[in-house]
Amino acid sequence: VEGEALMLDRSTGDTETVADYLIRRLHNYGIRHIFGVPGDYVLSFFDKLVHTKGIHVINTCDEQGAAFAADAYARVRGLGAVCVTYSVGGFKVLNAIAQAFAEKSPLVLVSGAPGMNERHRNPLLHHKVQDFDTQQRIFEHLTIDSALPSNPDTAMADIDRVLSSAVYYKRPVYLELPRDIVSSEVARTYGYDFPSTPHFHIPDPLRHERFTETDHEALKEALTETLDMINSSSKPVIIAGIEIHRFGLQDKLLELIEKTKIPVASTLLSKSVVDELNPNYVGEYAGNMSRNSVQRYVESSDCVIMIGVFLSHVNFGITHTPVDQSRCIYLSSDEISIRFHNYEDVRFDDFLDELIKADFKYFPPLLPNTINDNSSTSPHKKKMKITSDRLFEILDVTLSDHNIVIADAGDSMLGSIDLTIPIPSRYISSSYYLSMGFAVPASIGAQLANPMLRPIVIVGDGAFQMTGMEVSTMAMFNLNPIIIVLNNGGYRTERAMLDGPFNDIKMWNYSKIPDVVDSGRGFVIETEEEFIDALSESEQTTKAFCLLDVRLDATDASSDLHRLGEAIGRKV
Amino acid sequence: VEGEALMLDRSTGDTETVADYLIRRLHNYGIRHIFGVPGDYVLSFFDKLVHTKGIHVINTCDEQGAAFAADAYARVRGLGAVCVTYSVGGFKVLNAIAQAFAEKSPLVLVSGAPGMNERHRNPLLHHKVQDFDTQQRIFEHLTIDSALPSNPDTAMADIDRVLSSAVYYKRPVYLELPRDIVSSEVARTYGYDFPSTPHFHIPDPLRHERFTETDHEALKEALTETLDMINSSSKPVIIAGIEIHRFGLQDKLLELIEKTKIPVASTLLSKSVVDELNPNYVGEYAGNMSRNSVQRYVESSDCVIMIGVFLSHVNFGITHTPVDQSRCIYLSSDEISIRFHNYEDVRFDDFLDELIKADFKYFPPLLPNTINDNSSTSPHKKKMKITSDRLFEILDVTLSDHNIVIADAGDSMLGSIDLTIPIPSRYISSSYYLSMGFAVPASIGAQLANPMLRPIVIVGDGAFQMTGMEVSTMAMFNLNPIIIVLNNGGYRTERAMLDGPFNDIKMWNYSKIPDVVDSGRGFVIETEEEFIDALSESEQTTKAFCLLDVRLDATDASSDLHRLGEAIGRKV
Repeated sequence: VEGEALMLDRSTGDTETVADYLIRRLHNYGIRHIFGVPGDYVLSFFDKLVHTKGIHVINTCDEQGAAFAADAYARVRGLGAVCVTYSVGGFKVLNAIAQAFAEKSPLVLVSGAPGMNERHRNPLLHHKVQDFDTQQRIFEHLTIDSALPSNPDTAMADIDRVLSSAVYYKRPVYLELPRDIVSSEVARTYGYDFPSTPHFHIPDPLRHERFTETDHEALKEALTETLDMINSSSKPVIIAGIEIHRFGLQDKLLELIEKTKIPVASTLLSKSVVDELNPNYVGEYAGNMSRNSVQRYVESSDCVIMIGVFLSHVNFGITHTPVDQSRCIYLSSDEISIRFHNYEDVRFDDFLDELIKADFKYFPPLLPNTINDNSSTSPHKKKMKITSDRLFEILDVTLSDHNIVIADAGDSMLGSIDLTIPIPSRYISSSYYLSMGFAVPASIGAQLANPMLRPIVIVGDGAFQMTGMEVSTMAMFNLNPIIIVLNNGGYRTERAMLDGPFNDIKMWNYSKIPDVVDSGRGFVIETEEEFIDALSESEQTTKAFCLLDVRLDATDASSDLHRLGEAIGRKV
Repeated sequence: VEGEALMLDRSTGDTETVADYLIRRLHNYGIRHIFGVPGDYVLSFFDKLVHTKGIHVINTCDEQGAAFAADAYARVRGLGAVCVTYSVGGFKVLNAIAQAFAEKSPLVLVSGAPGMNERHRNPLLHHKVQDFDTQQRIFEHLTIDSALPSNPDTAMADIDRVLSSAVYYKRPVYLELPRDIVSSEVARTYGYDFPSTPHFHIPDPLRHERFTETDHEALKEALTETLDMINSSSKPVIIAGIEIHRFGLQDKLLELIEKTKIPVASTLLSKSVVDELNPNYVGEYAGNMSRNSVQRYVESSDCVIMIGVFLSHVNFGITHTPVDQSRCIYLSSDEISIRFHNYEDVRFDDFLDELIKADFKYFPPLLPNTINDNSSTSPHKKKMKITSDRLFEILDVTLSDHNIVIADAGDSMLGSIDLTIPIPSRYISSSYYLSMGFAVPASIGAQLANPMLRPIVIVGDGAFQMTGMEVSTMAMFNLNPIIIVLNNGGYRTERAMLDGPFNDIKMWNYSKIPDVVDSGRGFVIETEEEFIDALSESEQTTKAFCLLDVRLDATDASSDLHRLGEAIGRKV
């Protein structure tokens, strides 16, 4: 996929339309796949897309699936795009766009729309609700930038601004294309030019010209304070957040850790942002949902350095008192704070660059496996009924370097705390926004974003029933995720909080879904042995998706979920 | 279901909470089923619901299905309710709410939310995006009224206002319940009282005290003008729109027709608003998509009386020039217009009441079957490959009095033009908003709203792949719709406009879905004979849903679709 050139070559003097320009820019940002469902207001743009070499259209069963897939694509590749029709398509993806906003995923929503020439005298065109601009007004609430390029003369500038906002802020953006503009020729006079490199290339988001430069006096003061705090502490710890991944700062973080030997933890949302076999890695910190040793280590630290962390209550165990602010240094793209005061004119990346160069005192390295003891003994095949805890233990020793783990909300995510992800950024979950139904379509996006990866999806039966039929899209595009359905007959996470018949769902024969979509392989799993065998056979079944129906007791849950349920149950 | 009393009896002096009050009011408006998917912010309200006798919770696979079902419930029963959690639930139903707004369906969205006591200092609670009020702000764009009853003292007034807005305007409303308010006791001092009748009772929406009364001078003038126009015409025709159904004016319309013998047509959206065997019924008028005889009749009329019609371009054939305004009398809940001027102080129902009493000249009745010749000859069983046109012809003679036809967007809807619906309001389709995926979940809502009905769903394969797995909900609640999937391997309506690989979908073995959900019966249909047999066997299979996979040629389409595609294709 990399290196494919777009069909259109401006140097040949071809006419370029608004659609051509948008596609060229998306390609330039590294996009090779666009997810969506067509509709009449966006048909001509789909037509342009399928006639563009180097861009593949992935049409999913429902728009929701397309947007979730595009979100995961963005998380893996740096930018994703979903393309839908007006209202009946656009409004279906609002939840996925909200998720991308909440969790900082750079996602471009392209919506078709009635032509500008169809809007005179406000006719009742189909799909229209309220005013013609209602859809854009709604998406303004949940996107960082939006545009309706209604004029070909300014369309290039509109498109450039909106796309760069997505890449800079790591948030979704909205682009509405009136269908009579799609084929309008763009202005030749527009001055902005960019290298038409055929290679995967994302401009450095933190070096964007539209945004504030660091005040170096302020930086100096913040740095001195930070160093004083760290060097006068006896047991500092770094908590590495999801922004490390979103802004591509993994190498800088690693440099800091290697140099200082300060131990590092991740969060629920940022799991796998650090190589989890790194000797300085202590584990996932999630308040009282953490493994005990990790919680003790972090909470007894006298200097907590949070880098790119979302201060969401999920990350900190929901009901748990967060880390004491008087011991905190907080660095993020939004703000830099030391204890109780903020530095507003210091850029996140500039600060990190200087911090790496600073003089630290000697911190003794962690003894091997003192905290992050993930060494599981290889499991024996057993006729034992499978449980959540054992499922994750078995999975942990089965993960390979080519896997990416994608966990849905609930116990799929909580159980994954105990998985060791050996390569950075090989784990995806909606661990803050917690939208059910993300994981199955997300695996489509993740695998297309990096075809070297084989996704392992962990999903509850309730979430699977929302979007799981997108396995049809896997069948259509020859993708091969391994999907593990935690089948316990209902919304297990909610049962832990407050149970009732509303938490019961219809029991499906998930393993028969391959018969419906004429592709894939199904397994029914009752015992540990069957799970081990199914994982092994799935590993060898590379031509299609595999669906493992893991039948758990209705009361079974990971130890983490038990703790969470008790804590939350008091609040509902 | 009718006649069941709510568990709570205020006369006993029981404490009443905000949740109790809301449930009692919903019950009082005739609601016996609430559709939704639970989540932690709304769990306590679900708990209240399942402990209320007389209210049933119908939990669907995905929130989208719940909202579509509730919309259909509202169309059949006069009010519907969908209940979801904050953001991850709420944002998923935006499209269905938009549809309800566009097509005037009175639907109550109840969303759970973080407690007011959890909102101090704006913490990053899970599911939250932007501000705590972002969800409400978004829904304000697409609802007619909304409230967040954050204070138990005013909660009753908030709830009353919002519910009466839904019933009055026939539009969706938004109600957000912070979870710490659910169990708060409502104010005892609130003065409003309503009869706690256990019977199905919907207050007369057009007699609501909050809205303008008719100016009788204006009414008199409008009536005189209208009568002059009608009595001086030689060939008047009534077009009966969907508001006749929404505002329950079927009997008044019938009275007008019986008295005057003026012929009446319906529209795509209002199909079946008049008994289609009525001798005055001429057929469905849909511009150039109409049957030729109907189009000729309406367009040659010298006085077109539109009653409660949406002036949407779909109703008038999309590309067709609408009826000449100088020959039009237009009566609706929004406005009353005669030719080019409006009467603003005349109420729709008052005008209709007076019109019925007026003196009309003699109009000769239509000769039998001059226009609306729907008499199909009973089809012979044939080995012929089934086609869309034949499918609708066969279905037409099979429909019984206990059926309600629910058609999805596209050819399912266009082909249905030729069905004769013998009983008023036994046809549902999203014929203006045209959202795909409505029909399958809608049949759940329609059947629960009136358990005497057996829905016949007509749905394209593309639309089925969006929401069709809600057959699981049918299995869970012992519902038995008959679902006819028009299986032609893609988005047929779009192929007619502009074709490409984006219109191809994965071919499913729809008849194997019953194996997945362990319920229902599947049929594969290639010939007319097989279709006739499957309909007959489905009729006898009353314990579960039936799924008919009707395999059509990829190029097959109804004659109506061919015309539409040609017309629209020039616009995309």
